Amino acid sequence: MSSKPNPLQEFRDTRKIMNEKIMNLDHLGIKRFFNLDTNTYKDGALPGKTKELLGLVASAVLRCNDCIDYHLEQCAESGFSKEEIVDALNVALVVGGSIVIPHMRHAIATLELLEEEGTLSAPLR
Amino acid sequence: MSSKPNPLQEFRDTRKIMNEKIMNLDHLGIKRFFNLDTNTYKDGALPGKTKELLGLVASAVLRCNDCIDYHLEQCAESGFSKEEIVDALNVALVVGGSIVIPHMRHAIATLELLEEEGTLSAPLR
Amino acid sequence: MSSKPNPLQEFRDTRKIMNEKIMNLDHLGIKRFFNLDTNTYKDGALPGKTKELLGLVASAVLRCNDCIDYHLEQCAESGFSKEEIVDALNVALVVGGSIVIPHMRHAIATLELLEEEGTLSAPLR
Amino acid sequence: MSSKPNPLQEFRDTRKIMNEKIMNLDHLGIKRFFNLDTNTYKDGALPGKTKELLGLVASAVLRCNDCIDYHLEQCAESGFSKEEIVDALNVALVVGGSIVIPHMRHAIATLELLEEEGTLSAPLR
Amino acid sequence: MSSKPNPLQEFRDTRKIMNEKIMNLDHLGIKRFFNLDTNTYKDGALPGKTKELLGLVASAVLRCNDCIDYHLEQCAESGFSKEEIVDALNVALVVGGSIVIPHMRHAIATLELLEEEGTLSAPLR
Amino acid sequence: MSSKPNPLQEFRDTRKIMNEKIMNLDHLGIKRFFNLDTNTYKDGALPGKTKELLGLVASAVLRCNDCIDYHLEQCAESGFSKEEIVDALNVALVVGGSIVIPHMRHAIATLELLEEEGTLSAPLR
Repeated sequence: MSSKPNPLQEFRDTRKIMNEKIMNLDHLGIKRFFNLDTNTYKDGALPGKTKELLGLVASAVLRCNDCIDYHLEQCAESGFSKEEIVDALNVALVVGGSIVIPHMRHAIATLELLEEEGTLSAPLR
Repeated sequence: MSSKPNPLQEFRDTRKIMNEKIMNLDHLGIKRFFNLDTNTYKDGALPGKTKELLGLVASAVLRCNDCIDYHLEQCAESGFSKEEIVDALNVALVVGGSIVIPHMRHAIATLELLEEEGTLSAPLR
Repeated sequence: MSSKPNPLQEFRDTRKIMNEKIMNLDHLGIKRFFNLDTNTYKDGALPGKTKELLGLVASAVLRCNDCIDYHLEQCAESGFSKEEIVDALNVALVVGGSIVIPHMRHAIATLELLEEEGTLSAPLR
Repeated sequence: MSSKPNPLQEFRDTRKIMNEKIMNLDHLGIKRFFNLDTNTYKDGALPGKTKELLGLVASAVLRCNDCIDYHLEQCAESGFSKEEIVDALNVALVVGGSIVIPHMRHAIATLELLEEEGTLSAPLR
Repeated sequence: MSSKPNPLQEFRDTRKIMNEKIMNLDHLGIKRFFNLDTNTYKDGALPGKTKELLGLVASAVLRCNDCIDYHLEQCAESGFSKEEIVDALNVALVVGGSIVIPHMRHAIATLELLEEEGTLSAPLR
Repeated sequence: MSSKPNPLQEFRDTRKIMNEKIMNLDHLGIKRFFNLDTNTYKDGALPGKTKELLGLVASAVLRCNDCIDYHLEQCAESGFSKEEIVDALNVALVVGGSIVIPHMRHAIATLELLEEEGTLSAPLR
């Protein structure tokens, strides 16, 4: 694992600080939404692992890099291999079109960081 | 199965006729895109079945009823139960927000038609 | 009020039936989302009335006719005049561009139906 | 030209009636936006004809059937052939992805109606 | 007020310089659009203040950070309290879904800067 | 041409490196999509030059800065003048609304860099 700061770690740190500030706003609706969001990816009729992959593809076609990074990490931690994640991103590319390509580039850079860290278990050949 | 025409069957018929007309335009780029689209949902690093579910959620957050209908049918034929499909639609609802609700209503109506036809194997309790 | 069926009444009827079917799916996450959605428009730091107008403009720029119809009715019942609602739709038009125009046409047709019914209190000159 | 009503003619009629109602709202901002919109497609640094094609592709990737119909008619009247219009729609398909396909089907149906009417000058082979 | 540069001030400076460059392009349509945009938020059937809040929610559901920053500042200057602005952002969150969360984080960071500057009159508890 | 690094050159460099990494993923679907994307802008029923302008407007209304930069460069290299490119961006602004303005600012900054480099042949005035 690299000891120098990386964009993924910066995202994680900022995300943590800002989410705490959002909780501290003490708005009941927002707190309930965040709670609902967390529960969405727990095991249900579908395993939580599958739903993380659904969250990743939804984030990719809606073209949100922060959401992509978050779900990439969750997918890697859930045990999806790089090949499986890339195959999911291909669905997003075909559904969403070439406008998704810059987010594909972003996702591949994040996957590399997850590989370097060891979060992504199965390195691509 | 009902013998009277239903919106899902109308969609299937129109889709078939219009896709043939699109092929008859004989535009190489369009033909290749349609071919690429079909291949996307074949078994790869991920099973085709999983990718149909990814296609459904992508269609739901991008709010396209025709795409939702198409992937609902594919998901039902791939063997997903109604509970699993509904759990996937919940991911789309939380990622995409209340703007997805009208498409959730559409999806539930289509799921009913798929159940009546027997395409959806596992009826909801 | 006209006794013949109108598109707004059809929307209301379908919406009611389908929302009940969605509740009957008995998916906890979906039920909680619907509950959260309802609570969003209750009085808080902002009056519920103002939040209905925010919901209308959000629906218009995201280009969802069903959502527009729902919020138009809520805005009319909250006491906004036709002129005020039209002024809000103009914000949506400028933010969202000419792609919003077909939804503006839809909204004006719905406003007429709300006027005929007497739901919209202040007719346009 | 067919004498029976067709979806394109219905769209034209509704569009005309509703646009007049929008003008009658007498909202200065809305009136100015509509005026600005009309002027956008007049000859400038680019010919108006080219800008109609730009409007068509913008409408297709934003997935608005009414806007697609409007610009298809303008493109046909400007003298673009069916092959040229289809080639423009292919750009929209690749940029916007498979989610554009249902709108491609809609566009091809409208192109047929424009051909039957004689508005589209150059029939495809 | 902090004397060190902050992202909000950088945005303001860049926005000012670039808007001037856009005006200097001397394109009549663009100039008229910018003028129309400015006039949209002036008092009309609705007070300009309310329309700034509508602009904020439209910007949030369309997920444009620069637009969010601009309207946050206008809302703060119009006299909305932090609690009111947060309540409006909650409407955007529920309508637009979890994909809006990264923009919520951005908005809260900007609100803090507006509070430090004294532009936001009513600090949150 | 300036010798110091500029955002456009950084974009080009990152784009090149990341596209190579995407190719090295060796996913057949992704490789075919990239190939299809490249072929889309070759001469067909419409000249490739016209299609680059269509790609630019599609990118602008879908609000993707990287895509805008890519197509701006292609448009400049195809021989479009700054006035023509600005006239195309105005179509995007009117179709897509004020939410496009931040991307208009980005586009104008990129056009300046293309002018400085000499890629854009016809300077404004």
